[in-house]
Amino acid sequence: MAPLKLHGVPFSTCTARVRACLEEKNVEYEICPVDHGTGAHKRPDFISKNPFGQIPVLEDGDITLFESRAINNYIAHKYKDQGTDLLQHGNLDDFAKLLVGCEVESQQFNPTMGPIFFNIFIAPLRGWAPDQKTIDENVVKVGTVLDVYEKRLSSSKFIGT
Amino acid sequence: MAPLKLHGVPFSTCTARVRACLEEKNVEYEICPVDHGTGAHKRPDFISKNPFGQIPVLEDGDITLFESRAINNYIAHKYKDQGTDLLQHGNLDDFAKLLVGCEVESQQFNPTMGPIFFNIFIAPLRGWAPDQKTIDENVVKVGTVLDVYEKRLSSSKFIGT
Repeated sequence: MAPLKLHGVPFSTCTARVRACLEEKNVEYEICPVDHGTGAHKRPDFISKNPFGQIPVLEDGDITLFESRAINNYIAHKYKDQGTDLLQHGNLDDFAKLLVGCEVESQQFNPTMGPIFFNIFIAPLRGWAPDQKTIDENVVKVGTVLDVYEKRLSSSKFIGT
Repeated sequence: MAPLKLHGVPFSTCTARVRACLEEKNVEYEICPVDHGTGAHKRPDFISKNPFGQIPVLEDGDITLFESRAINNYIAHKYKDQGTDLLQHGNLDDFAKLLVGCEVESQQFNPTMGPIFFNIFIAPLRGWAPDQKTIDENVVKVGTVLDVYEKRLSSSKFIGT
């Protein structure tokens, strides 16, 4: 069977999110580098894969997915019988904790850590000045999220189980 | 079996998101109103249910969940054999489209429509002036998302199938 094709770039946290899932599930894949610097992700051939022109994109034969969390959910289900169990379907309480943990990452952690990462790491790569006000505001917000994580991790090995 | 308890308020879009799912799945539930106006969601008894102090919260016996999309995923799985099929596990291609559609709502539509809704509807309820700059910026952004939705809906009845 042909390996999955992951279109992405090394410094993208969203690409890394999918690679972490593929590694946990022991799934064979190949990286198809996207020339982000020249705007390859905004050109028609890439837009035909993801209309939002964002990386990563996963191609599995005729099936094309985008949005890193959707890709990971797909991988977790398709390869549920190999690698790490990322579904926790066996126990309703564990399953509930996993779902909440995933959504806290998506709705609480990422929206506050994302702008910090962008301004400190990505903006300088593109020659833009970091927006210090955005960084400062989000450092406060992400602190609240990390306080919740800290409390959770004081009684559990993982956020989501 | 005791009905599920949904802690929320009528004007909350996140509460409405969970109610829509419960109705689609024909699940019995009771609404436990949260006195949002007096800050009940920020008091210790509510924080013990959701450390972020946000509605909605779902209680299913000893299991407590927050984050509306996590709650809906839980409901879709627990009650998979009744009401509308919200999982599409039967076909890998349909499942992939559903996952992508859900994440587009979460990562593209909601982050742009949310601030518009907040400034036009919620801010005046609290006696705050709407932030017109935020509204204008997000009207442009949500337009891009709606263009993608329009294209998708020209060839499919739903975004996610």
